[in-house]
Amino acid sequence: MNPSILALCGGVGGAKLALGLSRTLRPDELLIAVNTGDDFLHLGLHISPDLDTVMYTLAGAADPERGWGLAGETWNFMEAIARFEGSDWFRLGDRDLATHVYRTRALQQGLGLAEVTKSLCDAFGIAHRVLPMTDDPLQTIIATDQGDLPFQDYFVRLDCRPRVRSVRFNWVEMARPHPEFAALLNNRELRAVILCPSNPFLSIDPILSLEGVRPGLQSSPAPVVAVSPIVGGKALKGPAARTMEELGMAPGNLAIAEYYRDFLDGLIIDRIDEHEAAAIEKLGIKVKIVDTVMRSMQDRIDLAETTLEFAIGLTRR
Amino acid sequence: MNPSILALCGGVGGAKLALGLSRTLRPDELLIAVNTGDDFLHLGLHISPDLDTVMYTLAGAADPERGWGLAGETWNFMEAIARFEGSDWFRLGDRDLATHVYRTRALQQGLGLAEVTKSLCDAFGIAHRVLPMTDDPLQTIIATDQGDLPFQDYFVRLDCRPRVRSVRFNWVEMARPHPEFAALLNNRELRAVILCPSNPFLSIDPILSLEGVRPGLQSSPAPVVAVSPIVGGKALKGPAARTMEELGMAPGNLAIAEYYRDFLDGLIIDRIDEHEAAAIEKLGIKVKIVDTVMRSMQDRIDLAETTLEFAIGLTRR
Repeated sequence: MNPSILALCGGVGGAKLALGLSRTLRPDELLIAVNTGDDFLHLGLHISPDLDTVMYTLAGAADPERGWGLAGETWNFMEAIARFEGSDWFRLGDRDLATHVYRTRALQQGLGLAEVTKSLCDAFGIAHRVLPMTDDPLQTIIATDQGDLPFQDYFVRLDCRPRVRSVRFNWVEMARPHPEFAALLNNRELRAVILCPSNPFLSIDPILSLEGVRPGLQSSPAPVVAVSPIVGGKALKGPAARTMEELGMAPGNLAIAEYYRDFLDGLIIDRIDEHEAAAIEKLGIKVKIVDTVMRSMQDRIDLAETTLEFAIGLTRR
Repeated sequence: MNPSILALCGGVGGAKLALGLSRTLRPDELLIAVNTGDDFLHLGLHISPDLDTVMYTLAGAADPERGWGLAGETWNFMEAIARFEGSDWFRLGDRDLATHVYRTRALQQGLGLAEVTKSLCDAFGIAHRVLPMTDDPLQTIIATDQGDLPFQDYFVRLDCRPRVRSVRFNWVEMARPHPEFAALLNNRELRAVILCPSNPFLSIDPILSLEGVRPGLQSSPAPVVAVSPIVGGKALKGPAARTMEELGMAPGNLAIAEYYRDFLDGLIIDRIDEHEAAAIEKLGIKVKIVDTVMRSMQDRIDLAETTLEFAIGLTRR
């Protein structure tokens, strides 16, 4: 396998484009590196929310309404565990639980997260390579007005209510990007890097924080293009816009472009944000204006094709 | 709590009488020590089949048809894990799984099995004391014509098909009876010990094998009474009769009496086995003949009352 397209991806929003890319590119052409900063131990189980979302989405098994978890899920385990725990704030479906139980045991047996993910993907019939950004532990910590919170505590348990002051990544000094990911990033055959429409600060930044990734994106001969998760000053899903405000930025595409400007060649924004294009282009970043809201499968494929064409057509600064 | 009645118990059959005892005795009067030789790790989860059967039965939550597991159970986890594993021979219901996930995590956090069982019982509203026979690991190994098998491999995976040659208990030298169990056994206030109708070789013997238990039963001033699990030469549930044949005994109450004769004062057998009474009494063991098949709740309560009266009326040899 010698992929030539690298996608960096978080959860629900990013997974939509990852699905589009997987319908546009052959399995041997694409590598999807997924954020694992949200991974956590819950009820003794190793849960990888973004990996699972990407996996279930690519398998066509994700719940279309929620965006996360499996379609046709049941919740009898949750009902039963509530009796013992009270700690039922993170919802684990009965079928979804099989993923976590399998993963936890495989990790305990000494397999790496990438290897386990490969087995899970095989079982789901996913031919494309879905790779955790790292096999090492790395934990996204949100410093808030209610103290330091692991990602899922902030995101799910407290429903993003605390005000974000800063974000850091525990153990990032020891974490290394997965070797396949690092190798592709430094491969001269790499044709494009796509940042999927995921939260830049909470989902993409953990990936960028890994040793060598940001420098790799800066020095790669391949163009780097992001699809903005912000439409009309709001995030389609999740707290990206509010996070930006709380971090002292104006929620919008310009701030995202500025955040990525050290390596970004092109930014895809929604038609509704056309007025931001000029300011972004002043940063030396090309802008492509399209409909970025992906409702149908065709929307996902169209946006994937547009993104690839746009990226491959760019030359690096 | 100062219990005066000690019950030794295995799985489904024993749990029926344990339920009857719990409807007959106050919570502070009864201690139920349960076999844990069948406990095993499956999919990384600590499963205690007999403890769960007793717990679910006492809570009125057990499935009335199967005898094990929870009533109204669903099997979506099993369906999903089959995708990854193939190792779906041990059926874990979605609700039942909550027990195993909770127990596994609590044990990992350093709690003892008895403590965890107490929390589980509290959550199920069980006031009577259900105690694992030991907090230590002890593993029932069945030596068969197909090699040495952990209990659940023999019992569930291979459906008791291999021929039993002998039974041994791994780590028994290191295992100690739970202190509450040992203390009651040696307490002069103990009024009776009841061996519930469980498989003598596979369910009761692990309890008897713990240091001090058999000698304690021999020297206790309290009478020891067993309710036979064999009716008309057959086990009502499970492989007890076949095990006896394979171990070279004639399947029946006489062989059970002989097996327990070093400490047994009384044996309760079914009307259908009345012809065995004389031979058993020749061993110095009193026999009580009743209907031992427990179909209704009233049957359970009646047999519990009969057993208690019989036991307390006996004097030790």
